[in-house]
Amino acid sequence: MPIESERAVTQAVLRAVEQSADARHAELVGALVRHLHEFIRETRLSEQELEFAFDFLNRIGQATNDSHNEAALFSDALGASTLVCLLNNGDGAATETASALLGPFWRLNAPELENGASLLRSPTPGTPLLMRGSVQDDTGKPIAGVRVDVWQASPVGLYENQDAEQAEMNLRGVFSTDADGRFHFESVRPAGYPVPMHGPTGDMLRKQNRQSYRPAHLHFLLFRNGFKTLITQVFPGDDPHLDDDPVFGVTANLIGNYTTENAGTEQERCVLDYRFTMQPGEARLPVPPIK
Amino acid sequence: MPIESERAVTQAVLRAVEQSADARHAELVGALVRHLHEFIRETRLSEQELEFAFDFLNRIGQATNDSHNEAALFSDALGASTLVCLLNNGDGAATETASALLGPFWRLNAPELENGASLLRSPTPGTPLLMRGSVQDDTGKPIAGVRVDVWQASPVGLYENQDAEQAEMNLRGVFSTDADGRFHFESVRPAGYPVPMHGPTGDMLRKQNRQSYRPAHLHFLLFRNGFKTLITQVFPGDDPHLDDDPVFGVTANLIGNYTTENAGTEQERCVLDYRFTMQPGEARLPVPPIK
Repeated sequence: MPIESERAVTQAVLRAVEQSADARHAELVGALVRHLHEFIRETRLSEQELEFAFDFLNRIGQATNDSHNEAALFSDALGASTLVCLLNNGDGAATETASALLGPFWRLNAPELENGASLLRSPTPGTPLLMRGSVQDDTGKPIAGVRVDVWQASPVGLYENQDAEQAEMNLRGVFSTDADGRFHFESVRPAGYPVPMHGPTGDMLRKQNRQSYRPAHLHFLLFRNGFKTLITQVFPGDDPHLDDDPVFGVTANLIGNYTTENAGTEQERCVLDYRFTMQPGEARLPVPPIK
Repeated sequence: MPIESERAVTQAVLRAVEQSADARHAELVGALVRHLHEFIRETRLSEQELEFAFDFLNRIGQATNDSHNEAALFSDALGASTLVCLLNNGDGAATETASALLGPFWRLNAPELENGASLLRSPTPGTPLLMRGSVQDDTGKPIAGVRVDVWQASPVGLYENQDAEQAEMNLRGVFSTDADGRFHFESVRPAGYPVPMHGPTGDMLRKQNRQSYRPAHLHFLLFRNGFKTLITQVFPGDDPHLDDDPVFGVTANLIGNYTTENAGTEQERCVLDYRFTMQPGEARLPVPPIK
């Protein structure tokens, strides 16, 4: 039957989608179609607005390259990445296991380092940082042999892939927990930074008068067979953007315990202690958002 | 306040979006966020599925170029384009004014032709076609001076921008209605054709076991000051794909009156007569989906 009315369009699309032999695919695309059509009806989307949407959508992929993932950034800025993270990690905001979105800057194959080593691979001025982590299971027992992948922005707020001044893989490294579930490394205190604003996501943030700075943080990805891979971020408690993070990544138990040694002297150093709790589950690496 | 739970994410994003000074922007993105978050909750979208979505989204823009618009095609294949069309044109399925989606192949600046001229600009084998149109307002009064932009696929199912065998702007032309609101032109009978299947939309159609052929049609875009621009398509009543058009473009009153003269002889010719009804409204050209 040809389409009889605007109501019939949705039914016709849902019938077409249900032809898939993959039940989860049909469920996902069916739900997408229902919500997309309801969005269009509810807003009475105009023909001109649909044309704008085509262009916006095309510009997302066109802004993506080996060192930038605009689709991930757009999802982050709409809170979708954080929502998926919390739904799949026991609503992490309220539990011991504090997950956060992966973000668009994780790279595969960071250098493997000995415990205590430095993340610096080229001179990187800034306040020295000692980070001491411990990893336990949900009964409080230390977990040895966890691969801990760390990445962070520099004190000027740039990841090495965004910054010609930094050596390849600067401020990235992979550690392994010892028999007591502990690891530690040296680095420099990271700075907050604006999310990339050159693409359509930047246009949207400007249109919404949203500030673009993320609070400073360290990224961690903890991987060990038998445990659900833990992806998270740890923030200092005094950052001015904890409450208006453009990607909604800050939950209360992601605030780390930062202390300062020898404040005001040439030996000033930050120390961050943080305890990670891993849940039983599947060890799986995410698709790297960049190369 | 940091995010307290998965429920709090949606509220935080909506507050951020509402900072926009543009009320319609805030309404649209707010509705998008609500539906996107409900889609994620309802399907319990996994982290792996979110990564798939990033890649799918990026591939849309990366498949788009001057002669192909994957975002428009994806919207068409989800029924979103037809839904927007019907909602903005008095639910065209049920009214005199029969609109259809623009599709991804309209180009600006097709050649202006005299009434009666041919659309052929290079040899194009196929059954000759005479198309006779008339344009009236919603009281039945003929409208003179309407610019009628026509485009169609060849009898092998390719638009000229997809086919090195065809001359630039073959099977495209712009006519003007005479004092009686009439225009006519010569061409060849179009064939149905598969929508472009090389991008992510093609992957989706295959995954859903959907057939890819559109029913044969002529595209029309009617433009005159004082009238809402009428974008439509006219189909023959005997096409095998009227009921499973991959872009949901066929409504009952878009079936044209095709007759055949001198059937079975060397002088065989198709004749299509069709009457267009324009509504009062704004004359506006859409953004061309390709160059």
